[in-house]
Amino acid sequence: MELKLINARYLDTDTMSIKSGDIGIDKGKFVSVGSASDHEADRVIDIKNNLVIPGFNDAHTHSPMVFLRSYAEDLPLDRWLNEAVFPHEAKLTAEDNYILTQLAVCEYLSSGITSCFDMYYFPDAMAKAFKETGFRCVFCGALNNFSESLEKLEDYYIRFNSYDPLISYKLGFHAEYTTSRELMEGIAQLAHKYKAPVWCHNSETFSETKDCIGRYGMTPTELMDSIGLFEYGGGGYHCVYLSENDLDIFSRKGLTAVTNPASNAKLASGIADLVKISEKGINLAVGTDGAASNNALDMFREMYLACVLQKLKYNDASAMNAEYILRAAIVGGAKAMGLENCGNISEGMNADFAVIDMTRPNMQPENNIIKNIVFSGSKENVIMTAVGGRILYEKGEFFIGEDLDYLYRKTSEICERIFSE
Amino acid sequence: MELKLINARYLDTDTMSIKSGDIGIDKGKFVSVGSASDHEADRVIDIKNNLVIPGFNDAHTHSPMVFLRSYAEDLPLDRWLNEAVFPHEAKLTAEDNYILTQLAVCEYLSSGITSCFDMYYFPDAMAKAFKETGFRCVFCGALNNFSESLEKLEDYYIRFNSYDPLISYKLGFHAEYTTSRELMEGIAQLAHKYKAPVWCHNSETFSETKDCIGRYGMTPTELMDSIGLFEYGGGGYHCVYLSENDLDIFSRKGLTAVTNPASNAKLASGIADLVKISEKGINLAVGTDGAASNNALDMFREMYLACVLQKLKYNDASAMNAEYILRAAIVGGAKAMGLENCGNISEGMNADFAVIDMTRPNMQPENNIIKNIVFSGSKENVIMTAVGGRILYEKGEFFIGEDLDYLYRKTSEICERIFSE
Repeated sequence: MELKLINARYLDTDTMSIKSGDIGIDKGKFVSVGSASDHEADRVIDIKNNLVIPGFNDAHTHSPMVFLRSYAEDLPLDRWLNEAVFPHEAKLTAEDNYILTQLAVCEYLSSGITSCFDMYYFPDAMAKAFKETGFRCVFCGALNNFSESLEKLEDYYIRFNSYDPLISYKLGFHAEYTTSRELMEGIAQLAHKYKAPVWCHNSETFSETKDCIGRYGMTPTELMDSIGLFEYGGGGYHCVYLSENDLDIFSRKGLTAVTNPASNAKLASGIADLVKISEKGINLAVGTDGAASNNALDMFREMYLACVLQKLKYNDASAMNAEYILRAAIVGGAKAMGLENCGNISEGMNADFAVIDMTRPNMQPENNIIKNIVFSGSKENVIMTAVGGRILYEKGEFFIGEDLDYLYRKTSEICERIFSE
Repeated sequence: MELKLINARYLDTDTMSIKSGDIGIDKGKFVSVGSASDHEADRVIDIKNNLVIPGFNDAHTHSPMVFLRSYAEDLPLDRWLNEAVFPHEAKLTAEDNYILTQLAVCEYLSSGITSCFDMYYFPDAMAKAFKETGFRCVFCGALNNFSESLEKLEDYYIRFNSYDPLISYKLGFHAEYTTSRELMEGIAQLAHKYKAPVWCHNSETFSETKDCIGRYGMTPTELMDSIGLFEYGGGGYHCVYLSENDLDIFSRKGLTAVTNPASNAKLASGIADLVKISEKGINLAVGTDGAASNNALDMFREMYLACVLQKLKYNDASAMNAEYILRAAIVGGAKAMGLENCGNISEGMNADFAVIDMTRPNMQPENNIIKNIVFSGSKENVIMTAVGGRILYEKGEFFIGEDLDYLYRKTSEICERIFSE
């Protein structure tokens, strides 16, 4: 086999329990888990009783938006969008996105994230970046009234679902408030043609939801459901303002709610009701959103916020629990993204994993390892991240086939060009 | 000189701007800042254009509570306190606190924290731990109806204010709801005798504040002020439920409000109104609180939450700003703790500093370095922490005079003993 992890503890996400044993990896997959293996391996890594976890699946992001990190913060949402985001985004080129995507990949890896569900533009350039770095990406269509088209969406859908084992593509559009009913109906036809799930931003802000009700007499979820967008599943990003009926639609149609607590906090959008989502048995996934609105691509931050903001929302310290959220960040994301072979450390699954350093002070004592990860874990604890059995990050160094200094210099040039125009 | 940092950028907290130059350190203090220095140094460190910041001053904590990290989370506040915290705390020995304090020091250092304002028991054992590790601590008296006494408080005050240059002691008590009026009056007498500020937990929860009004017809702040506790300043920890009149008292008496956003979120206490505190010109400091209620001793988490929770509270993405919060975490804390010689990198100040690695993906691009630190910074960025010119943490290693494995083993033994009883 290619790789053997010895003296490991690992998280079993089926039982959400910590187990011990060796882990064998070959051809990108876990081939033996738990039992000591006598097979020779090209490389043997002593995990030294640290913790191997399945990689986090970041279920909503816009990778190239790293260029806007800290560019224009602490502004009201409308000024931030109209003055800081939209005019500058419009200047991005495919080559820019190729560079910026690689920078985002480094940040994901440093947080133990092994895949992302990415909605943005120039997917060819981005797919090249993901493939070259070795990172797993599920694209989501970004169609709206101002860019892309149904033809392009279908073309992307076909091409990127047979592009590379690391890449796949889901039908999707930006949001109800940026997409005409005709376009949504066209997407529904594609969904039926390909028996495919559909994704979009959904009920992120109060005004988005209110305006949709004003336009259509229905919430975004009700509208999309009525158009037939969810006949083959899918889900929504943010889901801050889902009504009871929306939640029932999510439940009935087997949709996933992706929560983005850091983005929703920073942009003052609100706090999604994860307690209700959990009670309704709706699949929950966790996403960072883009760096423009977060500002970090850090799953530890998201998990922590996903838990504690519920406690504030419900004025109840017992609201929400760490285990549920950790599972959402790993298994919920994999399920949302159609990554059936990701999300657990078991034989036959993709060897997407991170190693958590349990010897840092913030992980001690080990009263409860899962709570330690969610409530005190941080990027300092990630000492290795691997996708499909390839180690892309180890002890602070990146092995993505590109030099970091080069990426930083190019990113800086992109920012200089775009912000000075 | 002892130490010279070359090719450095550094944060000037007077102007909240980033400057460049060399930094010379001798006898625990900054002796030359900004200009290239020809002086020989025992050790020269190339900062490689990374960022030197004055260390964070953690203005409220209970260091030994690390033993309770992740012990009993996601419980309602009263059950958590009465079942998880109080009965187990009661079993701690001085020797336990000596070990646990050292573990906490490691965690502070890994987050760039160089001093803490600590309220707990067995200060002799804790002072020994702080002194031996080389960490700066300002103790706050923990007097209440159930432990300590006025005599002990005065004894501690005298002894620990001449114990070691790293250690000082402030008059204080646990909180109004655990301390009789007679005891508070006794503390007020000590405050007058020593012309000393007084500190305590203040208005942390809604019920604490309501009950105090029920008992005395006054808020905790009004009561304490009426007793004469604040004639020489001081302040309160948490300050979630300050009334307009309380804020005016804080302003008039020059008190400091210490905010503990992570603890207040996790225990569902609420969100302190930092916007009003800022508008009233009240000194704001930032604290982690103990690991039992946080669960991390991480100033990056606190700063991030201090900012974004205001945005949620006010439903306004422009509420609160990064610069104000970063300054509070450094200068506000130093001012609160009476550390007049901490909080800036300038000649004659104590050489308490941290080095922020700007070459990590989360710090790129550098559109705004201060916003990067507050909104995307994490412990992964701290590559060095020094107190009084002594480097106690460097590239993941701790130089505190004690072996980490030993501390972890002893901590685990303490937990085993206490939780199995």
